[in-house]
Amino acid sequence: MTAPRLADSSVRVVGVGLLGTSIGLCLRDKGVPVMLADASPTNLELAVAYGAGRPAQPGDAPDLVVVCVPPDVTAEVVARELADHPGAVVTDVASVKSAVLAGVRERGADLSRYVGSHPMAGRERGGPLAGRADLFLGRPWVLAASQAASSRATHLVGDLALELGANLVTLDPEEHDAAVALVSHAPQLLSSLMAARLRDADDAALSLAGQGLRDVTRIAASDPALWLQILGANAPAVRAVLAALREELDALLGALEEPASAPALRTVAETLAAGNEGVARLPGKHGSRRRYASVTVAVADRPGELARLFAELGQLDINVEDLRIEHSPGASIGFAEVAILPSAVERAVRELSALGWKVAQQ
Amino acid sequence: MTAPRLADSSVRVVGVGLLGTSIGLCLRDKGVPVMLADASPTNLELAVAYGAGRPAQPGDAPDLVVVCVPPDVTAEVVARELADHPGAVVTDVASVKSAVLAGVRERGADLSRYVGSHPMAGRERGGPLAGRADLFLGRPWVLAASQAASSRATHLVGDLALELGANLVTLDPEEHDAAVALVSHAPQLLSSLMAARLRDADDAALSLAGQGLRDVTRIAASDPALWLQILGANAPAVRAVLAALREELDALLGALEEPASAPALRTVAETLAAGNEGVARLPGKHGSRRRYASVTVAVADRPGELARLFAELGQLDINVEDLRIEHSPGASIGFAEVAILPSAVERAVRELSALGWKVAQQ
Repeated sequence: MTAPRLADSSVRVVGVGLLGTSIGLCLRDKGVPVMLADASPTNLELAVAYGAGRPAQPGDAPDLVVVCVPPDVTAEVVARELADHPGAVVTDVASVKSAVLAGVRERGADLSRYVGSHPMAGRERGGPLAGRADLFLGRPWVLAASQAASSRATHLVGDLALELGANLVTLDPEEHDAAVALVSHAPQLLSSLMAARLRDADDAALSLAGQGLRDVTRIAASDPALWLQILGANAPAVRAVLAALREELDALLGALEEPASAPALRTVAETLAAGNEGVARLPGKHGSRRRYASVTVAVADRPGELARLFAELGQLDINVEDLRIEHSPGASIGFAEVAILPSAVERAVRELSALGWKVAQQ
Repeated sequence: MTAPRLADSSVRVVGVGLLGTSIGLCLRDKGVPVMLADASPTNLELAVAYGAGRPAQPGDAPDLVVVCVPPDVTAEVVARELADHPGAVVTDVASVKSAVLAGVRERGADLSRYVGSHPMAGRERGGPLAGRADLFLGRPWVLAASQAASSRATHLVGDLALELGANLVTLDPEEHDAAVALVSHAPQLLSSLMAARLRDADDAALSLAGQGLRDVTRIAASDPALWLQILGANAPAVRAVLAALREELDALLGALEEPASAPALRTVAETLAAGNEGVARLPGKHGSRRRYASVTVAVADRPGELARLFAELGQLDINVEDLRIEHSPGASIGFAEVAILPSAVERAVRELSALGWKVAQQ
């Protein structure tokens, strides 16, 4: 039997939020027939008008169904779609996988045709108008098949991910949940816990906040309703990460009671060193651990100045790999911290300085 | 008596790392005589060659001494400078203030001439060549005078901060230490604790890491040696913040044991909502809470593309208030998330789209 190819299939998308609409837009670009369904007629109309597909109709016989609904109703919708479309493979895009699989199994659905997915496309806010055909380009897409899944189902869903331009990562559902607990769910809660400390702070204290605090607490601004669902569905894995962290926090709290003692110094030093090691393990841009160097350039806070900087970097044939703008309250200039290849740093500093920029290498 | 003015004073800088050199560079720009001292002859030579001042000589009689040495030797050096220069006011730039004051007091020094400072200039890495005259421009500079400090001393050190372009924030040493424990030291340790969890993670799990984890763990890459000193000198205040956080973490761990129960749902929801509230209290750019809107633009990963985007934004007279570049492993395009005034969003989306950019409003 040849593996089924997505290009020869028709796809039904259930739920036209950011992810569903983006999937529809991309598949339509490639000529794949897409049928859309959504509980909200308004959203459905918007997604259709945007070009993500045609409205689903009774009698449709899709080869693949992609369920893009909130995590707490995903299992139910997956089971219903498996029953309604007995010829179809069904996947979903919820950011937890074991709980969804358990929910589908509980409902007695045909697990051979179900393969869970988790595209790590990040923007879970949005609605149909935030959709874009390139949303999945180069992003990880976890394929979390159960042992009951047929190879036909696994192939077809994998083909969907590849067709959308994603990078396929194969994990079993438990591995997936442990991984996202570590890299996404636990950091979310820690960020919230730290940000919660700021509620009752003095304005004077908050006026001292720098980029470090802003970075640590940025994701604390996330949508509580969505996260409540995600955390509820992945509680054991999240708890395991945070429980291990609490043991180290307890050791640290002990050390801070007698900070000058030798064991305390060792505990604090070890925590800091372990943090250094851990953060160094994060893959860099382009999927490698290639490190970038950065140069900091003073930029006046008015239109056109960043443009001029980037134009001149372009003329110097220096690619900007990443950028962070720092701007202090009240200041009329800011600083652009430009990440570039280490081999280009010396030249960047020299040439930009010659062009009159104030540059500091870091 | 008229308050002393920095412009009529001579300044001795002890320690020519990033901060000391930057202070020298800025004061020299303004014509203030600066005498430099450092335990490292090489660093001293570099700072002098860079234009931060002349080498200190026996018989110098500075009006103001600025001690810019590591936190663990600051009290000792401050006390020595107070003794060596009986006519001078002395300040320091260490990022902890109560412990330094206690150390100066223990040494029986003249506290009327000592006023502690903490410029929040952020870049504590660096050495003399990272120095820049505008390092303090628009940054908070905490003046943490003890009750024993004379008003002459307080005025002169405040004048230094203003001369360097900093925004003066007046706190007593204990208030200062509590504030930095909250906005800087506790976030540092939390970031380290989270990053430490990554040490033993599978590569597959790490390949799923997104911007959230990167932001939460960015400062975990900080220098352990410096942080060991800072945390040791501010242990009680840091402990207080982390102990309160641990109580909420414990409640959360309890909730994650029975995530579907009503009390558990409430605990998790409250943590997330408290995080929302806390992060909303952080002052925005320009010191106000003015919010920016953002548009996301797809940018090809090659030299000149960001330049073109910024040039076109400049031509549209749209000021870029902040920017974040997202780039997925392996992708040939990235996304520039450009923060602009809310009133400019509609026009930015329309005009950039007309110019052929792929733009999504958020």
